Amino acid sequence: MSRVQVAVLGGSGYTAVELLKLLLRHPGAEIAAITSRQDEPVADLHPSLFGRLDLRCRPFDADRLREQGVQVAFGCLPHGTSMESIPPLLARGIRVVDLSADYRLRDASTYEQWYKEKHLDPANLARAVYGLPEIYGSAIDGAALVANPGCYPQTAILGLAPLLADGLIEPTGIIVDSKSGVSGGGRTPKLSFHYPECNENFSAYGVGTHRHTPEIEQALSDVAKRPVSVIFTPHLVPMDRGIFSTIYATPVKPVAEADLLERYRAFYAGKPFVRVRPGLPATKDTTGTNYLDITVRVVRGKVMVLAAEDNLIRGASGVALQNFNRMFGFDESTGLN
Amino acid sequence: MSRVQVAVLGGSGYTAVELLKLLLRHPGAEIAAITSRQDEPVADLHPSLFGRLDLRCRPFDADRLREQGVQVAFGCLPHGTSMESIPPLLARGIRVVDLSADYRLRDASTYEQWYKEKHLDPANLARAVYGLPEIYGSAIDGAALVANPGCYPQTAILGLAPLLADGLIEPTGIIVDSKSGVSGGGRTPKLSFHYPECNENFSAYGVGTHRHTPEIEQALSDVAKRPVSVIFTPHLVPMDRGIFSTIYATPVKPVAEADLLERYRAFYAGKPFVRVRPGLPATKDTTGTNYLDITVRVVRGKVMVLAAEDNLIRGASGVALQNFNRMFGFDESTGLN
Amino acid sequence: MSRVQVAVLGGSGYTAVELLKLLLRHPGAEIAAITSRQDEPVADLHPSLFGRLDLRCRPFDADRLREQGVQVAFGCLPHGTSMESIPPLLARGIRVVDLSADYRLRDASTYEQWYKEKHLDPANLARAVYGLPEIYGSAIDGAALVANPGCYPQTAILGLAPLLADGLIEPTGIIVDSKSGVSGGGRTPKLSFHYPECNENFSAYGVGTHRHTPEIEQALSDVAKRPVSVIFTPHLVPMDRGIFSTIYATPVKPVAEADLLERYRAFYAGKPFVRVRPGLPATKDTTGTNYLDITVRVVRGKVMVLAAEDNLIRGASGVALQNFNRMFGFDESTGLN
Amino acid sequence: MSRVQVAVLGGSGYTAVELLKLLLRHPGAEIAAITSRQDEPVADLHPSLFGRLDLRCRPFDADRLREQGVQVAFGCLPHGTSMESIPPLLARGIRVVDLSADYRLRDASTYEQWYKEKHLDPANLARAVYGLPEIYGSAIDGAALVANPGCYPQTAILGLAPLLADGLIEPTGIIVDSKSGVSGGGRTPKLSFHYPECNENFSAYGVGTHRHTPEIEQALSDVAKRPVSVIFTPHLVPMDRGIFSTIYATPVKPVAEADLLERYRAFYAGKPFVRVRPGLPATKDTTGTNYLDITVRVVRGKVMVLAAEDNLIRGASGVALQNFNRMFGFDESTGLN
Repeated sequence: MSRVQVAVLGGSGYTAVELLKLLLRHPGAEIAAITSRQDEPVADLHPSLFGRLDLRCRPFDADRLREQGVQVAFGCLPHGTSMESIPPLLARGIRVVDLSADYRLRDASTYEQWYKEKHLDPANLARAVYGLPEIYGSAIDGAALVANPGCYPQTAILGLAPLLADGLIEPTGIIVDSKSGVSGGGRTPKLSFHYPECNENFSAYGVGTHRHTPEIEQALSDVAKRPVSVIFTPHLVPMDRGIFSTIYATPVKPVAEADLLERYRAFYAGKPFVRVRPGLPATKDTTGTNYLDITVRVVRGKVMVLAAEDNLIRGASGVALQNFNRMFGFDESTGLN
Repeated sequence: MSRVQVAVLGGSGYTAVELLKLLLRHPGAEIAAITSRQDEPVADLHPSLFGRLDLRCRPFDADRLREQGVQVAFGCLPHGTSMESIPPLLARGIRVVDLSADYRLRDASTYEQWYKEKHLDPANLARAVYGLPEIYGSAIDGAALVANPGCYPQTAILGLAPLLADGLIEPTGIIVDSKSGVSGGGRTPKLSFHYPECNENFSAYGVGTHRHTPEIEQALSDVAKRPVSVIFTPHLVPMDRGIFSTIYATPVKPVAEADLLERYRAFYAGKPFVRVRPGLPATKDTTGTNYLDITVRVVRGKVMVLAAEDNLIRGASGVALQNFNRMFGFDESTGLN
Repeated sequence: MSRVQVAVLGGSGYTAVELLKLLLRHPGAEIAAITSRQDEPVADLHPSLFGRLDLRCRPFDADRLREQGVQVAFGCLPHGTSMESIPPLLARGIRVVDLSADYRLRDASTYEQWYKEKHLDPANLARAVYGLPEIYGSAIDGAALVANPGCYPQTAILGLAPLLADGLIEPTGIIVDSKSGVSGGGRTPKLSFHYPECNENFSAYGVGTHRHTPEIEQALSDVAKRPVSVIFTPHLVPMDRGIFSTIYATPVKPVAEADLLERYRAFYAGKPFVRVRPGLPATKDTTGTNYLDITVRVVRGKVMVLAAEDNLIRGASGVALQNFNRMFGFDESTGLN
Repeated sequence: MSRVQVAVLGGSGYTAVELLKLLLRHPGAEIAAITSRQDEPVADLHPSLFGRLDLRCRPFDADRLREQGVQVAFGCLPHGTSMESIPPLLARGIRVVDLSADYRLRDASTYEQWYKEKHLDPANLARAVYGLPEIYGSAIDGAALVANPGCYPQTAILGLAPLLADGLIEPTGIIVDSKSGVSGGGRTPKLSFHYPECNENFSAYGVGTHRHTPEIEQALSDVAKRPVSVIFTPHLVPMDRGIFSTIYATPVKPVAEADLLERYRAFYAGKPFVRVRPGLPATKDTTGTNYLDITVRVVRGKVMVLAAEDNLIRGASGVALQNFNRMFGFDESTGLN
């Protein structure tokens, strides 16, 4: 059977190279094209691909991708650029999994408020499906445009969904204290990600202003069926990859830890990539995998959720492939074990 | 003028070696003795001291220390052991700065509840002063026994004191989400601190059960003049040193960020080692120093405090020397710049 | 078709967990048993396996393994222990890939000289094949006992083989300056691998005495068809995984860099896991893969070889699976892409 | 007594901030001025200086520095820029310790060959003294212009000097295999020093072409009183600071390790910052200090030297202060303990 022809847009960054490695192992996908302003062999941009992928990056050209038979494009472009490239693809019948933030927020005005720029493609925004399979499952299957979820939001949304779906916690005043490895900041050199600046260092950033806040709130409000608000604080950890979120919420009535754990197991039964763990999670247990590990605790009257994932796999390229699997009728786990 | 004769008890660990380096630079202190069950040259235990300190560790012997003219001992022993060694020293007129937890909690039953062992020296416990100079200042000066504060508690106590002293926040439901470098776990090898286990990893530990919780609450209750309770969550960061605490509290009435910053500056005026920073702190700004950096923010109706320190200096050996300075009449900053 | 039934001996360490993950992805292998003195679920020893492998480690018992239908055992035991466990397996017709050093040195007296203990199984030593597929290829296919090569030696042997096979360099005075990530030291906690000791540190160890020296010399002497001697210096790098070797040799007559590169490409043509690179290698390009990257340079009259690999995959568990593939008739790359 | 008025040129980098911290502790130096194209408070460029140094960086202006009473300037500028700024200072009677490479190579044509640019100040080049105190001692005392030595070269020069001074090794074919922390690459962000590129990675660079080669050879030829040549290979280690050099040389006749160690001790007797160690050195033993640790071994007929230092202190700012101490009549160790 012929394999799905795939393009990766914006091939120079970390999510692209992770995705390419996953696609190389996927039995039903074939990498047909990679685009980049850097018009050179992809193995020159990513030496780890030397001898594994003999393709040259080419500047983005929607017509050429169509001619190459591309059926689906993974967008690994920065936000802002993404919503310029995607409309011509959709117009040519190419389906899209967009790893940028451009199609995640349903309401263009929320996008403009947090991203400080005008949304350029409200028409397709209305068609986009938020690609968190454990929550939006079947809506993803037939979608032409999937907005791949943010790295941090997945830990918060999947961490809190079982509680909010059942109305077990107050929907406001939730604290999401998150910590990320440095690859989450992308591959463009800047002082804050310069090795001697962030090695042997721990710091917070974007306090009260991080753009993943409305994304978390949108999905959790869907789950809770009422408005949810969070205080989201990201921190930078001196490691390559991994996100860990420590979440604090107020139960509406007293709850028992064992009952909550049971509730989580039931909620995620049949979801292969969410592991409800009795012990405390750690990012390293998830490194290189598409697993998101969660546990829940009751401490001095608060409910605490602890969640961990690999920000580049589960947080980006792995869940993108999970979405691809649903869109093209593969088993959700194909190529992800 | 003759220098104060100093002993360091338990010379094999990280707080001991840091303290020895600080003492070597202190113009008014002379290292007279180092004790350890490892009866060997201190430079064999700590090769960084090669050529700098030509002393041999000897097993603990209170009489010998007295004969050597020791005036003050810094206890770098594990808790439990510390309260066995300190009574004979005090009995011989040797003053003590104890870096263990044994004399920090005023109430022996609280100690027994959290440390799961009986307190062996309630008599001296009653005389111990909690050695956080910015809060307990003059009580330290004449003390025979100073209980040096824990590494995490200092960030929480100094981070919250200005708010609680003025009754600006609710005294309960405070969240202290803390992150520490691995040296905080000591120098005894174990799997959780084995390099390949904690490198490239981020995890929580001691959720709801960490022994620094009652220490934080005791000092904050002193400051607030009413019972304060916190949820304290420590995490392990893949770096040698540094503690960062992200603290969330609920204001009793609306507050402005600028007013809070001003309040902090006033509270810490004249305290040389607390730096109230307008920007966000980072552990690396404090590495190798006795500074504790703090800022305060208002986010979505909550007050957030962010505090950073070097866990081995400010969090242990530096503040111990600051206490020593007060006890022996030196300027508080001597040897700490 | 039924899958090959596999046992992993010594399931608690790093090579075991890497091997288990590789085996989980191998279409022709089934993990039938894991042995360990720690009689508990393997996912308790390695939380990364939670939900992926539901097997309990059991103490080693050759009869039970035979009853379980085990066809091949991977030995992840320490040297010394390995040569106690392997004879009963071979006696029961179970083939073995031994990742320890016990069967690597053809001459028991060389083993005893470097490992300071008597060899307990000289009979099987005589049957063992050194499992470096690029050099000993077809001898591995039918072997009952394959001595999986050491991590460092592979970089030195494959790095120098093309030069020595053609007599292009002097066979003595070769310098192999190697650097390894900390996982190479195993999973047993000890001070030298305690995080705060080796993080932010670089050091040499085993200068002139490292046990991989005779292993390198044995294989290179085979290739050169005359005695080869090396000075091998290992160093410890503050990272989880990766080995890099910088090798210096004296050419017997002037050579051109371009010719040498061509020679290397020819030597490794058809070997899927050796990548001869025009640029300088870096360990990170090989992380998580079975590739060994090599380049060659001429500098001031010396030939320099630079080689990199992932010490846990190519250096241990990956090449073990490559050997398994040859032994059981799979394509050499199966499960390793 | 009035303190020496000091300027630091190029205040934004790592050597500058280290130097400023050392100067803050030096009893005989006062920081009068800091220059930088970034016209802002130095504590904004280096948050670690917040509350410790209340000076604003100003663009370089030789007249203004003269008016401010500056007696000595430390040049922390990039090579090329340095030789533009220094002539006007010397012309105004301001002495200079230049941390760049511009005045290290006695022969302008050698500079031009390795640095690929024309030397702009041959007149002062002739007056410059190479500032390695253990070798060029008294020449530094009265110098107007001291060329502070490179970080790598110090390990190679001090590592080999005792052998070459006595003619114990062949002066050619010496191999210097060096490893450096990332701060050695400076503070300007670029991809090769981007955290996720160099963390968990080990690689070589500048193979056969690194500019420290002629600097090492010049000083060693001075010591040996005949031409010395080396093969110098630098590598990048995932850590902030530290240089480790593993050096291989051929003895002219058989030597005993114990005799060599004794020779080293004699050679460095009275040199407070070179520690001849019986055990193997490690970079961490020198972190934050001006020590350069050395040992020597005989392995299979070769002499091996292993040397370690902190590249930012001993390798740059510490030795600069050591030179300052000599130039202004302070004890060589002042401010460096």
